Amino acid sequence: MTNRYRSSAALTEQWDNFDFSVEDGVATVTLNRPEKLNPLTFESYADLRDLLHEIPHREDIKVLVLRGEGKAFCAGGDVNEIIGELIQMDAKDLIGFTRMTGEVIRAMRECPVPIIAAIQGIAAGAGSVLALASDFRIVTETGRFAFLFTKVGLSGGDMGAAYLLPRAVGYGRATQLLMLGDTIDAETADRYGLVSKLVTNETLDEEVAALAGRLASGPTLAYAQTKSLITRELDMPIGSAMELDAMTQALLMTSADHAEFHAAFNEGRKPDWQGR
Amino acid sequence: MTNRYRSSAALTEQWDNFDFSVEDGVATVTLNRPEKLNPLTFESYADLRDLLHEIPHREDIKVLVLRGEGKAFCAGGDVNEIIGELIQMDAKDLIGFTRMTGEVIRAMRECPVPIIAAIQGIAAGAGSVLALASDFRIVTETGRFAFLFTKVGLSGGDMGAAYLLPRAVGYGRATQLLMLGDTIDAETADRYGLVSKLVTNETLDEEVAALAGRLASGPTLAYAQTKSLITRELDMPIGSAMELDAMTQALLMTSADHAEFHAAFNEGRKPDWQGR
Amino acid sequence: MTNRYRSSAALTEQWDNFDFSVEDGVATVTLNRPEKLNPLTFESYADLRDLLHEIPHREDIKVLVLRGEGKAFCAGGDVNEIIGELIQMDAKDLIGFTRMTGEVIRAMRECPVPIIAAIQGIAAGAGSVLALASDFRIVTETGRFAFLFTKVGLSGGDMGAAYLLPRAVGYGRATQLLMLGDTIDAETADRYGLVSKLVTNETLDEEVAALAGRLASGPTLAYAQTKSLITRELDMPIGSAMELDAMTQALLMTSADHAEFHAAFNEGRKPDWQGR
Repeated sequence: MTNRYRSSAALTEQWDNFDFSVEDGVATVTLNRPEKLNPLTFESYADLRDLLHEIPHREDIKVLVLRGEGKAFCAGGDVNEIIGELIQMDAKDLIGFTRMTGEVIRAMRECPVPIIAAIQGIAAGAGSVLALASDFRIVTETGRFAFLFTKVGLSGGDMGAAYLLPRAVGYGRATQLLMLGDTIDAETADRYGLVSKLVTNETLDEEVAALAGRLASGPTLAYAQTKSLITRELDMPIGSAMELDAMTQALLMTSADHAEFHAAFNEGRKPDWQGR
Repeated sequence: MTNRYRSSAALTEQWDNFDFSVEDGVATVTLNRPEKLNPLTFESYADLRDLLHEIPHREDIKVLVLRGEGKAFCAGGDVNEIIGELIQMDAKDLIGFTRMTGEVIRAMRECPVPIIAAIQGIAAGAGSVLALASDFRIVTETGRFAFLFTKVGLSGGDMGAAYLLPRAVGYGRATQLLMLGDTIDAETADRYGLVSKLVTNETLDEEVAALAGRLASGPTLAYAQTKSLITRELDMPIGSAMELDAMTQALLMTSADHAEFHAAFNEGRKPDWQGR
Repeated sequence: MTNRYRSSAALTEQWDNFDFSVEDGVATVTLNRPEKLNPLTFESYADLRDLLHEIPHREDIKVLVLRGEGKAFCAGGDVNEIIGELIQMDAKDLIGFTRMTGEVIRAMRECPVPIIAAIQGIAAGAGSVLALASDFRIVTETGRFAFLFTKVGLSGGDMGAAYLLPRAVGYGRATQLLMLGDTIDAETADRYGLVSKLVTNETLDEEVAALAGRLASGPTLAYAQTKSLITRELDMPIGSAMELDAMTQALLMTSADHAEFHAAFNEGRKPDWQGR
């Protein structure tokens, strides 16, 4: 099930801090404490980080879906479970925590597998950054985003939000969202460019399944390299980015999937993608 | 009134080239030549630059409001007072001028205090860049923006506009605005992401006062670091930005304000922010 | 006809792979295979690259218009003429191809002359990147964009698209467009910020002629430097960008066009721009 670049470390059989399933190439992480709006905890951050480091080694996962059980996506860190502990920690443990949470986001951006956030209800705090770091955000009419960090006395730049949000919506709107921490509704988020597709609560599951299925059955190497280029070229000057594009594309022109497209085109059929 | 990092240089008692007041943590700069639509002059640029360098040392200023007297925000440099002189200058003096004006904008972006531009009527030329470099733009229905530099035969990239505008609205719209120099109305600016809140001429004062009051009475250290991260991470790759976020957040988790949030939350009251 | 920085190499008299004309400072490239929706070929890429390298040396070209004959702008690389060959090439030739196509886009961004894409019908694949790399996109109601690279099994980051598109529309919408490769209509492209002006098929020619004429008769040095600053400052930190703005502006303040603006202003007439 692993690809040839996995070490001798075993893949984790059981994740304790969220529901996890894989079916037809689609992995799904479901935050599963709906009674508290699916808060993140020390343990679930660690699990997310390590799961994201295993996914690139698994051959059976082509897409990752993040979702919450019940009426919310994720309300962020729980006030007492997380903040109650943080305010008593020393520098070493605090750095351990903020690095861990940042590693979740960085692993999401660097993971070759496309990530879909299925959002109904609130995506707040760390939950809003999980949404922001996903590749696609399918959002229902009840979806709301709140980068509420300043409201708890912290910096709005939590877990990479000050890097990501200005590159998604411009620094003007990012300043407004990160400095004030106010909640925006789905329609506003859509206008700002934070919504890949606006749907209803009733159709969320089928819309997410349709996109996930499409990505899982598509040319996964092409998708992975597209995501990698978008991530990397945000940090590159134009000349280097052009060269990276050129080398990547030349390599993919030798891929089985590119040849398959050509064959299928000339035979008037749909391509049968292999992801190589 | 100064913090402990001020040198022996005295703070300036009197600024001659705009009205300046401080009340309840809110400093207000009012460009005060309404009969000429509040043009900038050699003297007012120099005053703005130096005021912006003093503000970080003043404990009594939590927010800065920029506004114009009368019907306009700021019409930019006056054609005869500024351009009439510039066309006779040599290289050394020209560089002195363009560096000074750029220092105003850079000081705005690096100032730890949030800056609100209160905009009715025209924000043109340097006035449009002052607006762009502010953190919040409260704009009335008569607000207009004109990055009109090419219309006077100069580069559209005045005072950092070619750096800032593409990062606020994307390079497509920035090219249109900077190369053509045409005026856009408030509604268009809002659609492009240049407006934090669209209001009416009648409600401008109260809207600006409400936002300024909220920022002045909020967790000012959290606001300052949010602004700093947004500014700095525009220039950083993702890994370094993540690390800066992590270090900043770990530090702010030790702050009195973060602990105060937690105490207030558990006591069911509003936090009493100290800015430390 | 060339400026003083042209070598002894002659300018090309005849381009074989598109129609090319120059009139009143406006150069027009018309992709001229309407029966196949104006596909790009090995030969037309090479011609575009070399034309773009000659344009900066020609004194008679102030603006470049890119357009397609018939109902489409450009459908990208032809499946059989291009892909049919690519899938049989070795690494050296593939790199030669992807570098050549990237050089077209880079030359567009670095060309001092403003480029207007006149878009009706489909701009697909390489055609969509040609549009994206232009400074202005005049788009009709039949205009459509399709960054369809993943649909042929290749990376969405073709010819710099993964660098350019996130800087035009944010990485969220760029991910959607580049990873899925779906077609968007003119209205959606406008909402995303990809359209400089939305027009009708009937008015496209006159709108393009009006903008081209305006740019050709304007302060071309100011336009050229504005474009250069937008391009370069996407890759620069704020301090360096401010300094580049300051040096450029100080230099342009010594230009004949800036003095001409001042003279014209005081004489109550329109400036007679010289482009120096």
